[in-house]
Amino acid sequence: MATGSSSSEVFLTPQALLEHWQGHRRVTRRVIEAFPEDKFTTFAVGGMRPFSLLAVELLRMDVPTVRGVITDTWSEGISAEARPKAEVLRLWDEHTKELNALWPTIPTARFQQTLNAFGQWKMPGHALIMYIVDNEIHHRAQGYVYLRALGIEPPHFWER
Amino acid sequence: MATGSSSSEVFLTPQALLEHWQGHRRVTRRVIEAFPEDKFTTFAVGGMRPFSLLAVELLRMDVPTVRGVITDTWSEGISAEARPKAEVLRLWDEHTKELNALWPTIPTARFQQTLNAFGQWKMPGHALIMYIVDNEIHHRAQGYVYLRALGIEPPHFWER
Repeated sequence: MATGSSSSEVFLTPQALLEHWQGHRRVTRRVIEAFPEDKFTTFAVGGMRPFSLLAVELLRMDVPTVRGVITDTWSEGISAEARPKAEVLRLWDEHTKELNALWPTIPTARFQQTLNAFGQWKMPGHALIMYIVDNEIHHRAQGYVYLRALGIEPPHFWER
Repeated sequence: MATGSSSSEVFLTPQALLEHWQGHRRVTRRVIEAFPEDKFTTFAVGGMRPFSLLAVELLRMDVPTVRGVITDTWSEGISAEARPKAEVLRLWDEHTKELNALWPTIPTARFQQTLNAFGQWKMPGHALIMYIVDNEIHHRAQGYVYLRALGIEPPHFWER
């Protein structure tokens, strides 16, 4: 094949995706850290959720999704409630390590198989993982706006 | 190899990345459309840029980057100034078509080669393309906050 349409051609390897994701997780960690303690659980713009709840959503998707890709058992783990900064950072670091440990155990074929994640998201494994990473970028960017509205300079987006 | 560390293992093919990106571009188009004409070029939160300028930044990166990956010549194209909604939508649709036409002509090896994009971003082709897509998700999410602050329900993030 001369063009990028063969199913064996590589844009991203599984290892490159993990590194990409962990780079984003480092940025998100810095965004969590940048919030003043009280604003983390209370401040929002336009009636949206405070950043604590957005970060908890991410924690209910990262490791739970990777576990689901491996085992086909889907569970969000922690409950969907706002938690203080220190607790979110602790969970964040735990999940970062778990992702590194779990990722190499995913059979590569799973990324091309259609999964039924959390009983409602039917898509190939790669699209599911991309969705999780994209959702992190999406909500983190909302945290950038919250920080700007609070007069706080956010971490650099390009620094991973 | 039993794990995802071989350089020939596929997480994403070039074709899957294009479909993923075009799905995001459809969401971004809906976000542009959702802005009232005057707010598009004037409204922002926390001293940030109005959504018109953010969308113009995306147009200065999408096709220009893909052209650069193919030719190693880097030029942002249009100037970095706010433009009215109708003009941005017209350029958006032009670039969408151009991306579809250009993408299959990228030699797959380019995605693994280290490029020096726009004379300042040294990274593999895949990381450069991921950066462009991530930057779109990032700025579009800021548009979501602007819309919420304006009392407007944004398009669904998960609908591509």
